[in-house]
Amino acid sequence: MEQKDGLSIPGVSRLERRLARRLLEMRGDPRIRIVLWNGEELRIGDVPPVGRLVLRERRVIWDLLRHPGSLGLGEAYASGRLEIEGDLAAVLKISFAVPARETALQLAIWRWQLMRRRSRSLGDARANIHHHYDLGNDFYALWLDERMAYTCAYFPTPSTSLEDAQLAKFEHVARKLWLQPGERVVEAGCGWGSLALHMARHHGVQVTAYNISSEQIRYAREQARAQGVEGRVEFREDDYRNISGEYDVFVSVGMLEHVGPENYAALGRVIDRCLGPHGRGLVHSIGRVKRRPMDPWISRRIFPGAYSPTLEEMVGVLSPHDFAVLDVEDLRLHYEKTLEHWLERFEKNAAAVERRFDERFVRMWRLYLSGSIAAFHASNLQLWQIAFARACSNRLPWTRAHLYAREA
Amino acid sequence: MEQKDGLSIPGVSRLERRLARRLLEMRGDPRIRIVLWNGEELRIGDVPPVGRLVLRERRVIWDLLRHPGSLGLGEAYASGRLEIEGDLAAVLKISFAVPARETALQLAIWRWQLMRRRSRSLGDARANIHHHYDLGNDFYALWLDERMAYTCAYFPTPSTSLEDAQLAKFEHVARKLWLQPGERVVEAGCGWGSLALHMARHHGVQVTAYNISSEQIRYAREQARAQGVEGRVEFREDDYRNISGEYDVFVSVGMLEHVGPENYAALGRVIDRCLGPHGRGLVHSIGRVKRRPMDPWISRRIFPGAYSPTLEEMVGVLSPHDFAVLDVEDLRLHYEKTLEHWLERFEKNAAAVERRFDERFVRMWRLYLSGSIAAFHASNLQLWQIAFARACSNRLPWTRAHLYAREA
Repeated sequence: MEQKDGLSIPGVSRLERRLARRLLEMRGDPRIRIVLWNGEELRIGDVPPVGRLVLRERRVIWDLLRHPGSLGLGEAYASGRLEIEGDLAAVLKISFAVPARETALQLAIWRWQLMRRRSRSLGDARANIHHHYDLGNDFYALWLDERMAYTCAYFPTPSTSLEDAQLAKFEHVARKLWLQPGERVVEAGCGWGSLALHMARHHGVQVTAYNISSEQIRYAREQARAQGVEGRVEFREDDYRNISGEYDVFVSVGMLEHVGPENYAALGRVIDRCLGPHGRGLVHSIGRVKRRPMDPWISRRIFPGAYSPTLEEMVGVLSPHDFAVLDVEDLRLHYEKTLEHWLERFEKNAAAVERRFDERFVRMWRLYLSGSIAAFHASNLQLWQIAFARACSNRLPWTRAHLYAREA
Repeated sequence: MEQKDGLSIPGVSRLERRLARRLLEMRGDPRIRIVLWNGEELRIGDVPPVGRLVLRERRVIWDLLRHPGSLGLGEAYASGRLEIEGDLAAVLKISFAVPARETALQLAIWRWQLMRRRSRSLGDARANIHHHYDLGNDFYALWLDERMAYTCAYFPTPSTSLEDAQLAKFEHVARKLWLQPGERVVEAGCGWGSLALHMARHHGVQVTAYNISSEQIRYAREQARAQGVEGRVEFREDDYRNISGEYDVFVSVGMLEHVGPENYAALGRVIDRCLGPHGRGLVHSIGRVKRRPMDPWISRRIFPGAYSPTLEEMVGVLSPHDFAVLDVEDLRLHYEKTLEHWLERFEKNAAAVERRFDERFVRMWRLYLSGSIAAFHASNLQLWQIAFARACSNRLPWTRAHLYAREA
């Protein structure tokens, strides 16, 4: 035992120092340093540091070695046993820039993890959605934009405000859908209803919107009343698999992530069933370049049951049916920007979040938001919007120029 | 034997009449009628006809019954034994609107046909390309635009001229590639070189363009000399598999159709090998919504060895490597429009084509161009442009608005 400032500080053994150095070398970037619980700093080379992983307890070494991916880091960080000094997103960007180890064993593990996913019942889906989206509308109001859009925004320029960028996203989606007044639109997974309300108010369409988050549906119905469009938007608290009726347009923004590949065929059948002969649609989802299981920490703590598909998997939802993909756009860097806005607002309200939940919750969400910034920046995640139509329909916009025309 | 205009006309037996009626019912559209060699007309219902299939000889019945797809019709039409009265493309549009019979047997046949495709050697590829593209530059000059672009044009409006639409296509592609002056571009399958010349002249890039059609390469080199850009465009008469060097940009417009699925992995490796860390690219190809073998008549008479991939297959060229798909656009109706222009010019010069080749050739090409109009119209074929970049590169245009900005 050493003495420092009158407190007893546990010493660092030779083995611990060797293992901590090994952790540093696994990260392999000289801009990251490790600080041990006795204040001792380990580094590779002499470049100025971007961040320091501060191991407050010796067990963090074992946490990180046993779970070298996000799980060890996430749990240690959330508990406060691990501190990260410096800009958290910047540190994580450096980590994500190191390619994952794609050994044959690792690939086999990933394949096994993907294989053992099973089709979830409506009840499982509801529990997974409840875990995240029913944390309380007040909580989300602390850091989302005024319309409560919790999906990637569209920034016409990088300096557009978050409020304007969410509105621009609604408009971008509505234009890709080529909405005509009087058309019937079904939305699968409508969040707090802001896109549905926008389409009904500004494009003269009749919207039926599905969601299984009871908190979100309650809020969306209130908004419809407050905005006087109750007659034009119906919010149904139900699963996308129970969509009934025939529509001209199908839209789903940020739901596919929660569907899981085991249910893609069912989703494809729903879209096929509910669209008429000139049906069109758009699916907006987080995706990945390579087929991989979800990040294990995100899967455990933030989004149980979630999965980010490849573009081939997204197209595969549609391809068994008579649909042609008309337009795909990757908005990855727009999601990085969106998350930067959310994190900034979250940090401003961190004290209020901590009063409502606890410190651990604040740290978990800080890590989730920062990690997501890093993941989109490093291209671990993509954001694809796929617009499609009945293959045999020729009622289509002639070019995409109308997406970029100034508003009338 | 009946007598008509003093000529002896073979009679129609009861069996022949029954079989001809069966052919009519298989087509199943009252707008199509069949006229037998004795002048007798068969019809379903009384709607005004769009076209009449005139069977000039009794053996056409057997040709069409034995090969109910395009093969029987194509061979009979090319030989003149079958005449089609009315607008050929309109008649074919009606035929294509009838969904193909997807029985279990038909699906098995298609699978078998796809399976038995084998990887073609460089020599096979050269023979296939020679068959179509080395018919003579003078022949193509009779009906292509002045720049000899033999791929789908981009019509900013439906009334844009073909000349302007091909230029707009070059510009659309160049903007999607986000070309920067001084960059090195490799083009796989450059046709008569018009896109390569455009990029070098108007975007300040250094282009290396590959093609195995000797006629096209000869023409492209002449153009480079005439336009004074020999120092900035190099035309190599070689296979895409032999592409060497490192480039900033890969582009391929209308070559993937000739690559074949058995070589997609090889093409993906070529793209991966030749692009640097901020590499970008675009692949422009005819595609299909469902995985199907090529049309058998087109495959035999027009494009031996060709294949139209699904969007999943196109993305699959890139996905084994570190690429993210940034943009997909379906230009199906632009190809219908392009082909309408080509057909119109072809018909104006049909006499010249017949002098150069023969009547059978004119009829084959008339059917090919008209059938392609119908196939894009009925969505049997798509035209996808896929733009992509190294997943880890953030040197990307912020939105796609620059594609639609007016030229400076």
